[in-house]
Amino acid sequence: MARSSLTLALVQQSDQGNTAANLDDCEAAIRAASIRGCSLVLLQELHNGPYFCQTEDPSLFDMAESIPGPTTERLSSLARELELVIVGSLFERRAPGLYHNTAVVLDADGSLAGIYRKMHIPDDPGYYEKFYFTPGDLGFNPVDTAVGRLGVLICWDQWFPEAARSMALAGAQILLYPSAIGWNPDDTTEEQQRQLQAWETIQRAHAIANGLPVGACNRVGYEADPSGVTSGARFWGSSFVCGPQGEIIAQADDQSPKLLVAEVDLGRTEQVRRVWPFLRDRRIDAYGDLNQRYRD
Amino acid sequence: MARSSLTLALVQQSDQGNTAANLDDCEAAIRAASIRGCSLVLLQELHNGPYFCQTEDPSLFDMAESIPGPTTERLSSLARELELVIVGSLFERRAPGLYHNTAVVLDADGSLAGIYRKMHIPDDPGYYEKFYFTPGDLGFNPVDTAVGRLGVLICWDQWFPEAARSMALAGAQILLYPSAIGWNPDDTTEEQQRQLQAWETIQRAHAIANGLPVGACNRVGYEADPSGVTSGARFWGSSFVCGPQGEIIAQADDQSPKLLVAEVDLGRTEQVRRVWPFLRDRRIDAYGDLNQRYRD
Repeated sequence: MARSSLTLALVQQSDQGNTAANLDDCEAAIRAASIRGCSLVLLQELHNGPYFCQTEDPSLFDMAESIPGPTTERLSSLARELELVIVGSLFERRAPGLYHNTAVVLDADGSLAGIYRKMHIPDDPGYYEKFYFTPGDLGFNPVDTAVGRLGVLICWDQWFPEAARSMALAGAQILLYPSAIGWNPDDTTEEQQRQLQAWETIQRAHAIANGLPVGACNRVGYEADPSGVTSGARFWGSSFVCGPQGEIIAQADDQSPKLLVAEVDLGRTEQVRRVWPFLRDRRIDAYGDLNQRYRD
Repeated sequence: MARSSLTLALVQQSDQGNTAANLDDCEAAIRAASIRGCSLVLLQELHNGPYFCQTEDPSLFDMAESIPGPTTERLSSLARELELVIVGSLFERRAPGLYHNTAVVLDADGSLAGIYRKMHIPDDPGYYEKFYFTPGDLGFNPVDTAVGRLGVLICWDQWFPEAARSMALAGAQILLYPSAIGWNPDDTTEEQQRQLQAWETIQRAHAIANGLPVGACNRVGYEADPSGVTSGARFWGSSFVCGPQGEIIAQADDQSPKLLVAEVDLGRTEQVRRVWPFLRDRRIDAYGDLNQRYRD
């Protein structure tokens, strides 16, 4: 089987305080990735601003923008100039009162190759996303680009094997997760480590179950809770790329911004699936309960 | 939420050369587990004999037995005498020419609480299970016992998130995997380690995705290929128990038989699911593709 090498970059950032500074930061990282030979750049979830979902504040909907819109235009120009694919993550204003958490894929010619609207929306203390984001209505459809068919999912999706599997069954060649997840500073160190390990483990498992490489790009740094109700969030970074057996290829630390560059061989998927042919053996005659909430 | 403590034992064994010796070994381990306060014992896959699927030999069907039959009778007596639950793994003869890889659950009163017939059947060099085992036709139904509702799956099932999820949706309180998986001695050390890590990672991920503890009991030791075609299998042991965040509670090594005892708190599942409420957020309106082979 032919090697099919892809050099990708994950941009692990901390919030710079305003949209212009964050986008400048993104652009600098994308240019650096280009110089290092990357043909695909994955940005973190909601990279234009702070992780604003720590409180429920109706005025924050002003941060949302249309797609296409100013950010996709800027990313599009960069993609075209540098001839690489960019996966961004935006707060989408679709209509008055209708907003989504949406990933955008800019192809190497600058065109908007496709979008993915976050399907699984979390809601727990400090992550009030059900207030801001309407659940996605586009399903699990990978996006075709110059570097391959990208299975883009977003953060909370990472806990759902169903999402990864659906992307794999639709022919995704790599799974990509823009993410914004961190520790509650009030939790014990043991609980914090269990959470980080679980986050890494389950995404590596999506690689294994589907024989696909995975890239997870997470926010880093402390962000205060504007309402003062909680102790804020310490985003744990730890962005990583793993291969189709779940083996870690590259990983950032949990403290600092990082341009993480990794090379993956998309051709290894077929090799791995020949040895572990899970797609062959799925019991599609017996999975009916997966479409149910619970069996009572 | 109330603590609900369960002390379980995993019996990691190597083949003793004949059925009588293997069953004596099982009995000794079960008695030792009872003395250590265990109320649940999980045996490894096909514990009565060698892992015979390294070759395709019609005469080996003679090893199959009925359920109930001699082994369930013996395990039943032990379960009743020691007042504990035993999960065994047998080569089931259901009818002439119809055989399954079947787990049996003996309740603490000695009754046969239920069985599970392996749903996902592997077939790759050295693991010719599709020759011996008809795929299970009982679906993913946990078994109610004196110690809780057990989600029993078998070996190859471990690679399928669908199986674990189906058991969780049916109310399983713990996932149990009797297993017989090992290294091809001809593979590189790097490949062997990727495989072992993948095996551990994906089962820990089932714990995480479903907020359930997991016990995986695997065979250990070298077994030659009777046909001489391959270099045989070195079963990698490494049996483990993890909690509902995928955190390892206890693990055996990859070299030697082991009675692995661990205590799990079944009450932690509800705590963990309140913080990570994945069952709340599953997009059951959008999982239709999971019942398809592939999207062409």
